[in-house]
Amino acid sequence: MAHGNQTTQTTRTSRAAVMTQVGTIEVLEREVPDEASLAPGQALVAVEAVGVCGSDVAYYREGRIGDFVVDGPIVLGHEAAGRVVGLGPDAAGTDALSVGDRVAIEPGTPDHVCAECVRGRYNLCERMEFLATPPYDGALTELMVMDARQLFVLPDAMSYEEGALLEPLSVGLWGCERAGVQPGDAVAITGAGAVGLLAGISARAMGAASVMLSDVATDRLEFASSLGFEVVEAGEGPGVAAGADVLLECSGAPGVLATGLEDLNPNGRVAVIGLSHEDAVGLPLTQTSNKELTIVPVFRYRHTWPTAIALVASGRAEVASLVTHRFDLAGSADALELTGAPGTVKTVINPQR
Amino acid sequence: MAHGNQTTQTTRTSRAAVMTQVGTIEVLEREVPDEASLAPGQALVAVEAVGVCGSDVAYYREGRIGDFVVDGPIVLGHEAAGRVVGLGPDAAGTDALSVGDRVAIEPGTPDHVCAECVRGRYNLCERMEFLATPPYDGALTELMVMDARQLFVLPDAMSYEEGALLEPLSVGLWGCERAGVQPGDAVAITGAGAVGLLAGISARAMGAASVMLSDVATDRLEFASSLGFEVVEAGEGPGVAAGADVLLECSGAPGVLATGLEDLNPNGRVAVIGLSHEDAVGLPLTQTSNKELTIVPVFRYRHTWPTAIALVASGRAEVASLVTHRFDLAGSADALELTGAPGTVKTVINPQR
Amino acid sequence: MAHGNQTTQTTRTSRAAVMTQVGTIEVLEREVPDEASLAPGQALVAVEAVGVCGSDVAYYREGRIGDFVVDGPIVLGHEAAGRVVGLGPDAAGTDALSVGDRVAIEPGTPDHVCAECVRGRYNLCERMEFLATPPYDGALTELMVMDARQLFVLPDAMSYEEGALLEPLSVGLWGCERAGVQPGDAVAITGAGAVGLLAGISARAMGAASVMLSDVATDRLEFASSLGFEVVEAGEGPGVAAGADVLLECSGAPGVLATGLEDLNPNGRVAVIGLSHEDAVGLPLTQTSNKELTIVPVFRYRHTWPTAIALVASGRAEVASLVTHRFDLAGSADALELTGAPGTVKTVINPQR
Amino acid sequence: MAHGNQTTQTTRTSRAAVMTQVGTIEVLEREVPDEASLAPGQALVAVEAVGVCGSDVAYYREGRIGDFVVDGPIVLGHEAAGRVVGLGPDAAGTDALSVGDRVAIEPGTPDHVCAECVRGRYNLCERMEFLATPPYDGALTELMVMDARQLFVLPDAMSYEEGALLEPLSVGLWGCERAGVQPGDAVAITGAGAVGLLAGISARAMGAASVMLSDVATDRLEFASSLGFEVVEAGEGPGVAAGADVLLECSGAPGVLATGLEDLNPNGRVAVIGLSHEDAVGLPLTQTSNKELTIVPVFRYRHTWPTAIALVASGRAEVASLVTHRFDLAGSADALELTGAPGTVKTVINPQR
Repeated sequence: MAHGNQTTQTTRTSRAAVMTQVGTIEVLEREVPDEASLAPGQALVAVEAVGVCGSDVAYYREGRIGDFVVDGPIVLGHEAAGRVVGLGPDAAGTDALSVGDRVAIEPGTPDHVCAECVRGRYNLCERMEFLATPPYDGALTELMVMDARQLFVLPDAMSYEEGALLEPLSVGLWGCERAGVQPGDAVAITGAGAVGLLAGISARAMGAASVMLSDVATDRLEFASSLGFEVVEAGEGPGVAAGADVLLECSGAPGVLATGLEDLNPNGRVAVIGLSHEDAVGLPLTQTSNKELTIVPVFRYRHTWPTAIALVASGRAEVASLVTHRFDLAGSADALELTGAPGTVKTVINPQR
Repeated sequence: MAHGNQTTQTTRTSRAAVMTQVGTIEVLEREVPDEASLAPGQALVAVEAVGVCGSDVAYYREGRIGDFVVDGPIVLGHEAAGRVVGLGPDAAGTDALSVGDRVAIEPGTPDHVCAECVRGRYNLCERMEFLATPPYDGALTELMVMDARQLFVLPDAMSYEEGALLEPLSVGLWGCERAGVQPGDAVAITGAGAVGLLAGISARAMGAASVMLSDVATDRLEFASSLGFEVVEAGEGPGVAAGADVLLECSGAPGVLATGLEDLNPNGRVAVIGLSHEDAVGLPLTQTSNKELTIVPVFRYRHTWPTAIALVASGRAEVASLVTHRFDLAGSADALELTGAPGTVKTVINPQR
Repeated sequence: MAHGNQTTQTTRTSRAAVMTQVGTIEVLEREVPDEASLAPGQALVAVEAVGVCGSDVAYYREGRIGDFVVDGPIVLGHEAAGRVVGLGPDAAGTDALSVGDRVAIEPGTPDHVCAECVRGRYNLCERMEFLATPPYDGALTELMVMDARQLFVLPDAMSYEEGALLEPLSVGLWGCERAGVQPGDAVAITGAGAVGLLAGISARAMGAASVMLSDVATDRLEFASSLGFEVVEAGEGPGVAAGADVLLECSGAPGVLATGLEDLNPNGRVAVIGLSHEDAVGLPLTQTSNKELTIVPVFRYRHTWPTAIALVASGRAEVASLVTHRFDLAGSADALELTGAPGTVKTVINPQR
Repeated sequence: MAHGNQTTQTTRTSRAAVMTQVGTIEVLEREVPDEASLAPGQALVAVEAVGVCGSDVAYYREGRIGDFVVDGPIVLGHEAAGRVVGLGPDAAGTDALSVGDRVAIEPGTPDHVCAECVRGRYNLCERMEFLATPPYDGALTELMVMDARQLFVLPDAMSYEEGALLEPLSVGLWGCERAGVQPGDAVAITGAGAVGLLAGISARAMGAASVMLSDVATDRLEFASSLGFEVVEAGEGPGVAAGADVLLECSGAPGVLATGLEDLNPNGRVAVIGLSHEDAVGLPLTQTSNKELTIVPVFRYRHTWPTAIALVASGRAEVASLVTHRFDLAGSADALELTGAPGTVKTVINPQR
């Protein structure tokens, strides 16, 4: 890439919340290319908001998620928005970015040329470089370099926090698209954490007739109810999927998928968004075969940022109220410790503070 | 159907607004089967609200729409809702209707057994019996008999007027579905009458990123603007379809489709909802071939009532404000005369008054 | 339907192979309506060929398949073709059947009016009356009455045996359609019995780039190979699904689905055609989530007979060579005993002999 | 990318058939990079077969096709296959090409990063560089440099001529895919030239129940008939689209589309492959609206080469017999003059002779 760049690369210093070992976060100073040293197609972004995700917490607590293992210092955070402070030579390209633009960051940069990318399925790219997925650093840093094509300009009225939430909203939108949510569908969602809520917000924005969430945690159900969703306590009465056309499984909890398959309507569709910790998820396929269900595991998302921006900007997807706690960069460890505790929905860190 | 019915059929009297000749409406008394004489699967409905549609006006003024020619007295009106006052022997069936239920009426009864019906495409059934399409009478009557499967129970909070508007809303929803409106699409609509507005309401409820309407009539644009849509005067500046992913053509006006094809984005989709009066609509297919547009004429709708009810009930499709004028049955001719005049959007007749 | 029918119903005698108890078949004489007594829409068919299916064998040996339990005498056989010998008053209807027509029989008659039927998904109809599925009798009989809409006229050059094989071919076609087999797909099939072979024949006729079958039985693989398929012994070397885009699981054997999910390409699709005997099928959903597989259980088929006829008639689906053994009606028990034995592929019974 | 490459670029000489002005072809010597000077990702190909297409003839005779205008010397030919004689530093990449590989050439190189490319719709890329489309040179040359990703290895048994024919076969396959050809469809094709024939071959390979072609030229119909297609003379008797589910319009002739729309079955689909010379193509949209047809113009193809190779290699798409005439490079002008004459189907030039 460096093509003949005889000039010396010059750098700036950026504070970053570095996980130096599992369970330990230190704010350290790191060098990043300065505005004049950006490669073609690259942008330098001042990160303004980073949402904490369950996967960040998993790396923080256990140092791994499945085959992805942390084996060195890593910067966490992949739900991010910020401000463009520098652009490489031809980085303005297609999206006509300018320095000063407020942007949301799509965290996974695909290679654009593999068979999956060429087919438009870039989320399946095997060479994807994804923020905060080992060995790639994430967004808990003052300044970061991104491929400019991963940046989406935010409307003036949209906050950085909303910009950061476009990432988990994308999970919900893509789950709904994979599940083929149609206007008029009755949608059931198992798991009422941030992902389940954003899946519900997505389903509603796509015309679902009804959206009902279940969870074992009543505080989550109360929050879901405050957003206008129907709710039911998991394990009480008929399952949430009884009479539903679509199940968006966001809990990863044992037995939830099996029960959902039994309860869903004929021609029902199941998007598997939450990941189970089991080696094998037992499904009653024979017993439910006469319903011709469709079961689709979901992996991240593709092509969702423009849609997410439009839905949030127009008020059809209201995401700002999910932010329950805020921290500065030095509070990153606290933010990670807190995430998932009762009463929390989405915790956001501001690396500029 | 008459199966062995040795019993005498007994009847009730119903006032109906009968078009006795083109341009003349008379309120006449007619006999309908009474509650005890309904055939299996039939319901007797007291009609409470009937929207006036452009097709009603066309039959009233010209006595024909294309190959459908009025050649005898006919009752107009096919956008209707009412109250169930009688049910035939096994009419409660699948939908578990009860006497007293408030219902919307889907006006086209298909044969259920032809190749198109078996494929689920009942709107293409050649033996469709459609209200107010010659030779079938419509809904401008106190009492009417319908196949119970055509009735959809209204939620308590939904008015009869909203119930009647589910029919033109269905036109919008089906146009969007045929056009493959996806969450995030930029949608352009040509023609800002009731159908165009309801197409826009549909697109928004399905997640369109933006919806812009054009018309030659500025009063219509003002109304559209009051509903939160972007608007542009037809013929002014860049076309409404410039930069759009989907065009919903609701005007039937000459040249509109051709311009739309030129303006749409690559991979654009065009639903042709408004019918042209031209023998042939000229389209620049060669000039636009490198965009691979998809052009889909739309014929009525299918499977839309449950969706329409859910969207209206939840407030995601707000239709009540489209009703600008109200008449009693004796005012049917006035209602037909008024429809389409400046300042009117949707005119509704209450046959019980 | 013929209510009101004061005329006496007259009958004919038909020999039928009746399973009087589990494991016992007797050829008995039974009464069927004669040509003059057929209800509207009904046809009297002289059955000429009946394929024996694994489900027939299951009822014969165990008296049940899942929740379907035989509790009285039953006639087996649902893969059938024959000759029209009588038609009820208006049975010629849409399909313009005539007495003398050679026809294939689609064995499941749906109700045509439930929500699934109206959507075009008649295979999910809960009131389906399916031949040889308790309590409905099947086709191992000289004469049977069928809804005329279930009959499809065979081209002159197509044999009755080919006509009977359209039923298991339909299973293959529908499995391919549910799996979204596209021209160019690499298709893997687990299980090389009649269903697996016909799934392979279907995939090839739909443009699959390659079709490979696996089985534990080498005689089946030899037969598959003789039809031009690639084959691999189950459990040897890399799995059959390695590098495949689509897996059609036709074996019902433990572990096969799990291995297939691990081996399939990204964006792979799995149709579950063979039914497992396990209460729950364990699937490695988390481990394979980054491939975004689609898993679709299959239930029978819909809308497949016209396609099946066209493909067989044109030679693109060669099915006649699957018939390895033939019996007369008195040999029905022998045919059931033989089915599944080494060297058998499809056993056919001719009830006219 | 490492250009900066201070090393001198070395070259080889290649004979090329250059259209020096409209209607004049001269065989000239041109410089191409030699094996050692190829940029990363590039391949040097010895072209072995080039099919002559109607678009080559149009440039040769008229110097333009629509907005694409020849304004300088140009090398024609875009249906090509050859042999890899050199590979740039990392050109073997994904497809693991080797020097010596026999390859088909996909002639349009997209930019891989625009919005259409990222969506997988690379045929709509506005920065597409397409062989023999001004200003890009084509394949009528001994040696040419191609992006290695545009090369597809041919099976040993496949000839270079078959390899060249994969390009027009791709037109047919993509037309069928855009039209949603399903197994069992009745397919009508207007225009029985090479494109129409290959569209028919494609439809058959995808499971069409029947394929009928029409043309005004009886020699073409005889050829089509010799390939096993049903044929009908254009303008005689009922139209070719009467009773068809799909129309593949390959003639570009006036009135053909309009007639097709009138004749097609309900739910019919029309792929517009042949380009009209008219400014506007008149379509009876209102008169046919009750059939809900789908009209899709087609632009080139995408993702078709692997499928095309599989279908030809397995014998399901037989294309070799379409080659009726062969020329050496010096005969290029003769080949262009001959193309389209009675008795010709596909003319192929071998630039190595």
